[in-house]
Amino acid sequence: MAPAQREPNVVVLGGGSWGTTVASICARRGPTLQWVRSDETATDINENHRNSRYLGDEVVLPESLRATHDFSEAANCADVIVMGVPSHGFRGVLQELAKELRPWVPVVSLVKGLEQGTNMRMSQIVDEVLPGHPAGILAGPNIAREVAEGYAAAAVLAMPDQHLAAKLAELFRTKRFRTYTTDDVIGVEMAGALKNVYAISVGMGYSLGIGENTRAMVMARAVREMSKLGEAMGGHRDTFAGLAGMGDLIVTCTSQRSRNRHVGEQLGQGKKIDEIIASMNQVAEGVKAASVIMEFAEKYGLNMPIAREVDGVINHGATVEDAYRGLAAEKPGHEVHGSGF
Amino acid sequence: MAPAQREPNVVVLGGGSWGTTVASICARRGPTLQWVRSDETATDINENHRNSRYLGDEVVLPESLRATHDFSEAANCADVIVMGVPSHGFRGVLQELAKELRPWVPVVSLVKGLEQGTNMRMSQIVDEVLPGHPAGILAGPNIAREVAEGYAAAAVLAMPDQHLAAKLAELFRTKRFRTYTTDDVIGVEMAGALKNVYAISVGMGYSLGIGENTRAMVMARAVREMSKLGEAMGGHRDTFAGLAGMGDLIVTCTSQRSRNRHVGEQLGQGKKIDEIIASMNQVAEGVKAASVIMEFAEKYGLNMPIAREVDGVINHGATVEDAYRGLAAEKPGHEVHGSGF
Repeated sequence: MAPAQREPNVVVLGGGSWGTTVASICARRGPTLQWVRSDETATDINENHRNSRYLGDEVVLPESLRATHDFSEAANCADVIVMGVPSHGFRGVLQELAKELRPWVPVVSLVKGLEQGTNMRMSQIVDEVLPGHPAGILAGPNIAREVAEGYAAAAVLAMPDQHLAAKLAELFRTKRFRTYTTDDVIGVEMAGALKNVYAISVGMGYSLGIGENTRAMVMARAVREMSKLGEAMGGHRDTFAGLAGMGDLIVTCTSQRSRNRHVGEQLGQGKKIDEIIASMNQVAEGVKAASVIMEFAEKYGLNMPIAREVDGVINHGATVEDAYRGLAAEKPGHEVHGSGF
Repeated sequence: MAPAQREPNVVVLGGGSWGTTVASICARRGPTLQWVRSDETATDINENHRNSRYLGDEVVLPESLRATHDFSEAANCADVIVMGVPSHGFRGVLQELAKELRPWVPVVSLVKGLEQGTNMRMSQIVDEVLPGHPAGILAGPNIAREVAEGYAAAAVLAMPDQHLAAKLAELFRTKRFRTYTTDDVIGVEMAGALKNVYAISVGMGYSLGIGENTRAMVMARAVREMSKLGEAMGGHRDTFAGLAGMGDLIVTCTSQRSRNRHVGEQLGQGKKIDEIIASMNQVAEGVKAASVIMEFAEKYGLNMPIAREVDGVINHGATVEDAYRGLAAEKPGHEVHGSGF
């Protein structure tokens, strides 16, 4: 039998609601340090065991969770890096990290989105900036607030190496948080980036008063459409039928708290996209992702009708009625091998 | 170019809400005759263009839909048979049909369930009673009432022969009803029979106050569990991620009108299963299906934890709390290849 080994130090970079929630999960298992930009938030976490700014006053964090705003301190002690910073700050933080991080340390992204301009997945950025560091992603149907409040949830940890995935998954497990494993990093990253566009399409439907059958139809066809692109890019279709695909889509389409669903509903009320964005204090990733999917669809020669209709409304002046009419005009074919909606 | 051909006569057997709704869809396309047991219902359909007993007074049926309670008349003129009778009457009706039906006439089942006692799928019964007649199924997220009221919906028509499937699918299409095709008869039939058990598990969850993450987790794992059994029986996993699997599961788990979800909620309130069944005037298929899944699980050597826990509550005196505790106790493994919950 192998002797007991030192527990890995988990370092979570980012002080947002989900980063803090994941840090809390890890802190229940072993040594965890969270790096946050604001000194105030670090103090709130260390002294009040709260992150009032992002999780309100009610959510109590584990006392074992420590926070710092000293980036070097965090980078130096890390045995595992968890990237809880948004996609637009992701590369910058990695570049800072490159100067200090020990070799081989795995990097787990929490980001469901692509880098603007390059359309790169986060693990591709890790490969570029920190070559040699295993890169993966943790994703699933995880409304941060609910997980923080102790409701049961599940996610999938994708890493290219399955032994590493199995070891790392243990760090992200509690009695109420179930972390599964997979080797399909591409699939999980793409599912996370794509599903927001489909949540907008369902949100649009709500504004048109669609029925429950119609909603389920759009969601089932959305999973098929996501799978098609995901597979063309090297992902596995099982991932899109799993937690990070269908699971996250269900939460994003049905939750009242979903920003992307909200965008679709507002579009259906005839509001302009700029107006909607201006009225929200958080980013709805699906807005940017719609045109990115169209670029991918062209690159891979795929017909992506749902994404095309969402893109039409967001970027080309179409109405929500036009979008649903456009889908209805497509002739249904073979459920799996058909090319259309 | 082929000359114009005679339109096939579609004969729908059964006068329930879904049979009538499908008959209405077919009648919008071409000649359709519906056989109903009750003379009164036949008159209601023919003279009032309503099926007041099953669809209320508001739903108006197309004038072109004709009904009869003369079985021989229906059987004799059929070029396509649509079986809208419940699973317990399915074999009996086929046996009557055998005496009169012309050769080669395809039989499309609308039944989401297995034959009690034999655990046979409906298409297997067709193969047994009417050998030589192509047998398939039409299924999807289709609350009859909503389809009848004109909300958009989709279904998948499964037939072993894809040319036949494509031709037949045209008979079941309107502007608002999208019929896709597949060759996976086993998958679609099993998805329809299995999903009710999983809807009960989600219904149980509602009574425990589970969050949206938790519900999405159970649904995503339910699709995986259904796929596992479905594949072992010869179905394709894509079907379970499609309209008849995930799509129908979403409707069944989220709709307020779902009988199986209702059963789960009532079980969660501590009611006994006999009491719940007695208080409902319609059958909740999932109640019977739970023990059937356990038989299949044993036969194929599969671990089916969600179905096992539902069966425990329905048939072995466990509580809903026990069921969710049982699931929480399972260690998450590989998302696709893991054997447990």
